Amino acid sequence: MPILNKDMQVCISLAARPSNIGTRFHNFLYDELGLNFAYKAFTTTDLPGAVAGIRALGIRGCSVSMPFKEAVIPLVDVIEDSAEAIRSVNTVVNDDGVLTASNTDYEAVAALLRTHEVDPAARVVLRGSGGMAKAVTAAFRGAGFDHLTVVARNTTAGPALAEQYGFDWVPVEQQAPEADVLVNVTPLGMRGADEDTLAFEQDRIDAASTVFDVVAFPAETPLVRAGRASGTRVVTGAEVIALQAARQFERYTGVALTDDQVQRASAFSRAE
Amino acid sequence: MPILNKDMQVCISLAARPSNIGTRFHNFLYDELGLNFAYKAFTTTDLPGAVAGIRALGIRGCSVSMPFKEAVIPLVDVIEDSAEAIRSVNTVVNDDGVLTASNTDYEAVAALLRTHEVDPAARVVLRGSGGMAKAVTAAFRGAGFDHLTVVARNTTAGPALAEQYGFDWVPVEQQAPEADVLVNVTPLGMRGADEDTLAFEQDRIDAASTVFDVVAFPAETPLVRAGRASGTRVVTGAEVIALQAARQFERYTGVALTDDQVQRASAFSRAE
Repeated sequence: MPILNKDMQVCISLAARPSNIGTRFHNFLYDELGLNFAYKAFTTTDLPGAVAGIRALGIRGCSVSMPFKEAVIPLVDVIEDSAEAIRSVNTVVNDDGVLTASNTDYEAVAALLRTHEVDPAARVVLRGSGGMAKAVTAAFRGAGFDHLTVVARNTTAGPALAEQYGFDWVPVEQQAPEADVLVNVTPLGMRGADEDTLAFEQDRIDAASTVFDVVAFPAETPLVRAGRASGTRVVTGAEVIALQAARQFERYTGVALTDDQVQRASAFSRAE
Repeated sequence: MPILNKDMQVCISLAARPSNIGTRFHNFLYDELGLNFAYKAFTTTDLPGAVAGIRALGIRGCSVSMPFKEAVIPLVDVIEDSAEAIRSVNTVVNDDGVLTASNTDYEAVAALLRTHEVDPAARVVLRGSGGMAKAVTAAFRGAGFDHLTVVARNTTAGPALAEQYGFDWVPVEQQAPEADVLVNVTPLGMRGADEDTLAFEQDRIDAASTVFDVVAFPAETPLVRAGRASGTRVVTGAEVIALQAARQFERYTGVALTDDQVQRASAFSRAE
């Protein structure tokens, strides 16, 4: 019989709308690796109180999602470069009361650009201007990409994001420049109202060498399917979410994961 | 494979030195009853921060042990009679941010006096003057006992406790009056330095009709064994701890437990 015990270290997540993904990903690996840890998703309407609780209860780590990624910054003690560069936190580690913030979304995107061998000389068009778009744009800049155009409906956030990282912006109504890499960081293709919407036109997908969809649910978005059909390199949001969770796991537990472990935990976390 | 999920309600405990008992008791019954709950013991050095966390994370319930039983009072919203009567809290229930404090130790002792049919006309001698002694003494008073003498080493707490509930006090060096009911609320007989110490003299045990030991570990203390050997009615600390946990369980989950469920959860919780 599975029974929690008093000595378990506890990790949590904080999100406006918690999903089961992190809870399943982390607990799957705790179980497989025999680690005395437990993971549980929470929501809150009182972020300072929740962080006080993390400190007071000795909670080992906390994944931070919308809308807390910026608000948590003044509540922690140390901010790593990955979070400082974009002023956005998705991970807090508690070392005996010292809270260190980082951003494993940024790290995951940077790592995927390397492992998929996306050429930094490529011309990139990126749709979106929200919090995740900031992490992705910063990761492209950090990986040495010079040619990136932000395409965004939001005429304030769009140009601000582009300018912050020295890139160009065009409004969504306007023709975007030719691109080798198409990146979707909007909800287009995400389960829900926009799940059937292709984030880029088919002829642009055909002309690209890489499509990168940050939408994680479903993994096989219209853009991902179109990219596969077109024979281009494809990077999925499922890869991003798994890799960022793996980086959190390693920070919380000190245990490095193999690719196989990450893939199996990811598959388990996504099963209904 | 057992995996926690995001929708689980979480109950915790706060103690200076957490044991595994509550964690095992509650999780055993969550599992048996198919309740989507999880229970985990915590410690803290920051009680206000911990209570802020309970509120902010929506933690459903919290068992409160030494040294937090009085300190938690100003941090909650509602105090039930069971806790108000003794200004000591061992249970906090969170109803959508409203924290209600109660004392299930008090309730458990009162219930055991009833189920064991201890006559309220009996003459009681009670050893001890700590926090738990207050709950037990108050429960005797609440159950209609008029003849109780507190025997205590502490010459401040002892008479204060007796006076508070209209009872007598004698210092431990002095001969206590004759008694039908002997109650031990000291650490005598508890696992550790005093585990072989009989809390009352053998001839007093032989003369009594009931011995009541609040020491929960081991269940079979020297006093309990001596009481059984002498053929007197015996009430054990194991019964107290199980019944108070059952009352917490019912408050947290809304599910009433059968005696059989309480006994099996208690046995499981005490297995090493």
